[in-house]
Amino acid sequence: MIHITLPDGSVKSFDKGTTPMDVAKSISEGLARNVISAKFNDTIVEASTPLTTDGSLTLYTWQNDEGKKAFWHSSAHVLAQAIQELYPEAKLTIGPAIENGFYYDVDFGETSISDKDFKTIETKMLEIARGKHDFKMRDASKAEALELYKNNAYKTELIENLEDGTITFCDHSTFTDLCRGGHIPNTGIIKAVKILSVAGAYWRGDENNTQLTRVYGISFPKQKELTEYLHLLEEAKKRDHRKLGRELELFTFSQKVGAGLPLWLPKGAALRERLENFLKKAQKKAGYEMVVTPHIAQKELYVTSGHYAKYGEDSFQPIHTPKEDEEFLLKPMNCPHHCEIYNHAQWSYKDLPKRYAEFGTVYRYEQSGELHGLTRVRGFTQDDAHIFCTPDQLDAEFKEVIDLVLYVFGSLGFENFTAQVSLRDPETPEKYIGSLENWEKAEQAIISAAKDKNLNYVIETGEAAFYGPKLDFMVKDALGRQWQLGTIQVDYNLPERFELSYKGSDNEMHRPVMIHRAPFGSMERFIAILLEHTGGNFPLWLMPNQVSVLTLSEKYEKYGEKVLNLLENYEIRALLDNRNETIGKKIREAEMNKTPYMIIIGENEEKEGKISVRQHGGDDLGTISVEEFSEIVSTEINKTLKQF
Amino acid sequence: MIHITLPDGSVKSFDKGTTPMDVAKSISEGLARNVISAKFNDTIVEASTPLTTDGSLTLYTWQNDEGKKAFWHSSAHVLAQAIQELYPEAKLTIGPAIENGFYYDVDFGETSISDKDFKTIETKMLEIARGKHDFKMRDASKAEALELYKNNAYKTELIENLEDGTITFCDHSTFTDLCRGGHIPNTGIIKAVKILSVAGAYWRGDENNTQLTRVYGISFPKQKELTEYLHLLEEAKKRDHRKLGRELELFTFSQKVGAGLPLWLPKGAALRERLENFLKKAQKKAGYEMVVTPHIAQKELYVTSGHYAKYGEDSFQPIHTPKEDEEFLLKPMNCPHHCEIYNHAQWSYKDLPKRYAEFGTVYRYEQSGELHGLTRVRGFTQDDAHIFCTPDQLDAEFKEVIDLVLYVFGSLGFENFTAQVSLRDPETPEKYIGSLENWEKAEQAIISAAKDKNLNYVIETGEAAFYGPKLDFMVKDALGRQWQLGTIQVDYNLPERFELSYKGSDNEMHRPVMIHRAPFGSMERFIAILLEHTGGNFPLWLMPNQVSVLTLSEKYEKYGEKVLNLLENYEIRALLDNRNETIGKKIREAEMNKTPYMIIIGENEEKEGKISVRQHGGDDLGTISVEEFSEIVSTEINKTLKQF
Repeated sequence: MIHITLPDGSVKSFDKGTTPMDVAKSISEGLARNVISAKFNDTIVEASTPLTTDGSLTLYTWQNDEGKKAFWHSSAHVLAQAIQELYPEAKLTIGPAIENGFYYDVDFGETSISDKDFKTIETKMLEIARGKHDFKMRDASKAEALELYKNNAYKTELIENLEDGTITFCDHSTFTDLCRGGHIPNTGIIKAVKILSVAGAYWRGDENNTQLTRVYGISFPKQKELTEYLHLLEEAKKRDHRKLGRELELFTFSQKVGAGLPLWLPKGAALRERLENFLKKAQKKAGYEMVVTPHIAQKELYVTSGHYAKYGEDSFQPIHTPKEDEEFLLKPMNCPHHCEIYNHAQWSYKDLPKRYAEFGTVYRYEQSGELHGLTRVRGFTQDDAHIFCTPDQLDAEFKEVIDLVLYVFGSLGFENFTAQVSLRDPETPEKYIGSLENWEKAEQAIISAAKDKNLNYVIETGEAAFYGPKLDFMVKDALGRQWQLGTIQVDYNLPERFELSYKGSDNEMHRPVMIHRAPFGSMERFIAILLEHTGGNFPLWLMPNQVSVLTLSEKYEKYGEKVLNLLENYEIRALLDNRNETIGKKIREAEMNKTPYMIIIGENEEKEGKISVRQHGGDDLGTISVEEFSEIVSTEINKTLKQF
Repeated sequence: MIHITLPDGSVKSFDKGTTPMDVAKSISEGLARNVISAKFNDTIVEASTPLTTDGSLTLYTWQNDEGKKAFWHSSAHVLAQAIQELYPEAKLTIGPAIENGFYYDVDFGETSISDKDFKTIETKMLEIARGKHDFKMRDASKAEALELYKNNAYKTELIENLEDGTITFCDHSTFTDLCRGGHIPNTGIIKAVKILSVAGAYWRGDENNTQLTRVYGISFPKQKELTEYLHLLEEAKKRDHRKLGRELELFTFSQKVGAGLPLWLPKGAALRERLENFLKKAQKKAGYEMVVTPHIAQKELYVTSGHYAKYGEDSFQPIHTPKEDEEFLLKPMNCPHHCEIYNHAQWSYKDLPKRYAEFGTVYRYEQSGELHGLTRVRGFTQDDAHIFCTPDQLDAEFKEVIDLVLYVFGSLGFENFTAQVSLRDPETPEKYIGSLENWEKAEQAIISAAKDKNLNYVIETGEAAFYGPKLDFMVKDALGRQWQLGTIQVDYNLPERFELSYKGSDNEMHRPVMIHRAPFGSMERFIAILLEHTGGNFPLWLMPNQVSVLTLSEKYEKYGEKVLNLLENYEIRALLDNRNETIGKKIREAEMNKTPYMIIIGENEEKEGKISVRQHGGDDLGTISVEEFSEIVSTEINKTLKQF
């Protein structure tokens, strides 16, 4: 008999050789139908792997990331078999599961494949899948492996490089692949398959090697899920922030300035400024003070902070000066500068908390191949702030920061989010800096704040940084994609390194605690996510141009300007389009610019002193007065933008 | 006979050997009394130098910078004689005139001198001056010169290094010095003398050489002028922006961050932000669009712009990256980035002018010894903008920029300013880029704008940069010191280098013209000047804290908060000081913080629902209502801050 511990902590006894599938069946038939993979003592196993020792077992279904991984990993085997059957000369190399689907790198030799071949491959894959072939792992000898791949230099190289000498194969149908395991029970549950694209990829990622063809695919247990996914993909393409950024003239890149260094065009800069002002206003109410610090500092500063040890070698290299022996670094973080600001004076506990905020632009090197629009850049502006407080103030400060983060999410239409509390591993106290007492205080403060604010949170023990526990927010965008936004991080390390202090009520000197926080994270990444979440239809309060006043002809310019002035009185931001163009063209352009409201004026409107209003997307709000219109606008704004 | 051309263009005939003083006498006795130096054909000469050829002559009095220079240069001779007589062992080295006064570097050997010796030196100098000794230049042979200085290694080194072999001496009284000339007629016009300080200075500025004593002094033709100067010096010390910056908690420096890299504290950052918002608002009305660009770019960008050739070797060195062969530079200028923004799209003449503005932080290397508070830093934020327009639009654009600059000066209390128009030298057209026609247009545009705006301006021919003519503003601060503020610069160069273009009404592609402009210049330097101009008493509209509400005791907190709310309704920025401190201490602190208005509230005020108001400096405005007070505040604000 062996003892199996399940995730809920319960322990059950089974015969030696029991499989995860057997365990699932012992729980419920429904579960057994859905189990597709499992983890036994931190190792991914097959649902059919016999268990021979005591241990902890987690069962995975399609609902789990690990389940999807097994599903897609298995699908890659099916893709490989299909390719091998369709292109017998093709040499297979490697084919892993990825975040969304899987790929296989193939040397097609003289042949090249393209879109028009995708259908054939998909058909072949589904034909194989329908065979309901079990995936079966088995050990193999090196000789056997080399024999199987005697015509495949890639697999031969892989086999030669297997250091531990254990070689395992996975068989299904008539196909065998070199494999470490982690499959679904059989091919039959793969019901829907799509080959998405092909791309060039060098063998082992080295451009001196042969270029292979990477075949990307995705698969699902239901056709409906594939349809939904493809629809989402279409939507995501339309909402790609790089595309919208170009169309809405928000930002651009220049080869001469350099990759990953966005240039913000007027409309983008105005958007950034509105977001910054929105946060500044809330932060002012919350007692933050703005500071301004330079974008470089002597290397010494980052040696003190420890950032040089962390980023130094892998980031932008030191800047030298012509006549003096000095080394400067582009700043990768604002915190060291803020510590030096804290240190410019002496503080008493009565002065704390000090809350220093800065829209601080930082620079971090990323390889050019890793850069992506605004989400992965080399220079970005953090909506950074550092709170310096006494350990006793942590609780209240944490709650206030959560309030601020929730206010930001709410005002920008992110309604779907979860939180993760990362605590230390109590079994390895030596890995953390700061006293046990302070850690206890901080962890309790975070948990109590998360509870108090009714967050939907999970606790991850052992996930804290060595310098303090933290709270991360994950938001789901309109397409269901998850993004990490908003971190609140306790720090016991920098106060030590910078020897920060305050005089306590006991007249002794103490170390303050630091909180790092950034609700947006970075302006660049946040705007990218907001673009993809809203498709460019930002909340009305944020729109730099809320209204376009379109004249039916140039005759109505004067009335147009009068309307513009009236709107200004109601603090509505509007532009006048009095070009000599058709109203149709003016509307089309305003629609393309995502203008929330179009006001159309001609003879009737001028005579009645009213305006005709059309909403983005085509809804007609009729002919009304500017006063009535301003009511509509303020109602719409109040839906999202509350007072902090 | 020789022909002498005077600055007004008139030509007069004189006997060969006539001196500048003779020429002065031929004009008027009054002029002759005041002439102390002269320039003949671009060479500084003595008033007593015989003129032997035709040429142009300018006569200088104490009112001219050149006159002052001769005066102080001559005073340095008198200082040298005094030192030599008082300290016969002292070895003289060099002693030039400087911006304010003069110095002499002396090797005092074993002796050291300090404040207490200044009086003796001054007395000796005045004694020499009263002798009315003429300054007389004469040629000397190298042998004679070396003989005179056989005990002075410094002068010997100077003589050995005189490359052209001509050695000249200046004699006065019993004293002789190695000298190139440029003196006043005689010592008698030096009526007032002050030794200001001593400092260490290495021979030839090289720290491997002997350390000498640099004796600083200043002299005047009238005792009254010295008294005024010393008063000004006292005032300037009190208003030193480094001192005020510390006292008002505006900014600080950190050794770890680095010299010349200011850290803006909350109050300083708030001040900056108010200034920025003030300019942003005016710029918005003037049709500028804000952009945001990174603080680095590939070296390539600055090679294209020509800035690498100009700054590259002498500034912050290129930044390398770990894995790719890339070189980045900290940006010394925002213009190349703005050119790339212009270039992101195609423009028609109907789209122009484009006016891109950015508060862009730039970095330029200065040797650490050259750094000074906020006026000479290594990183500073320009209130930069670049206007891209057609040649025909230059005229109107220039006028609008002048309006903006004058608005800025007026709103910030700079009432005393002059302008300089720098044009090309028409005799060396090959030195300039851009067509003759465009230069004509631009120069006419600048002159007509300067006239139109009633500027007090001078035209300097040949002072234009190679890439375009410009207009500079010089403001006089409250202590009479001149500062260059506000440059408007036409540029034909960058449009060429970046191949900027627009489609004209003729359907052909044309080059736009660029205007660079920055009314503040840099936020850092401007704030430094504003601090020294106002002594920290900024115009009311700019004061981050306009009013402090001081309670007579903690009992009046509630009423204090009510007053604060009322003030907020009137958009008056106020703080409540309800600490348990005496009203005397609260007033003293508010005075020290330069708070413009103090509101004092106690029992009477609460009972009557009024406030007692005290102005910065002590004026009592009596007990009035918040309404009445808000009237006073808005009247005071309207004195300086008009609508743009």
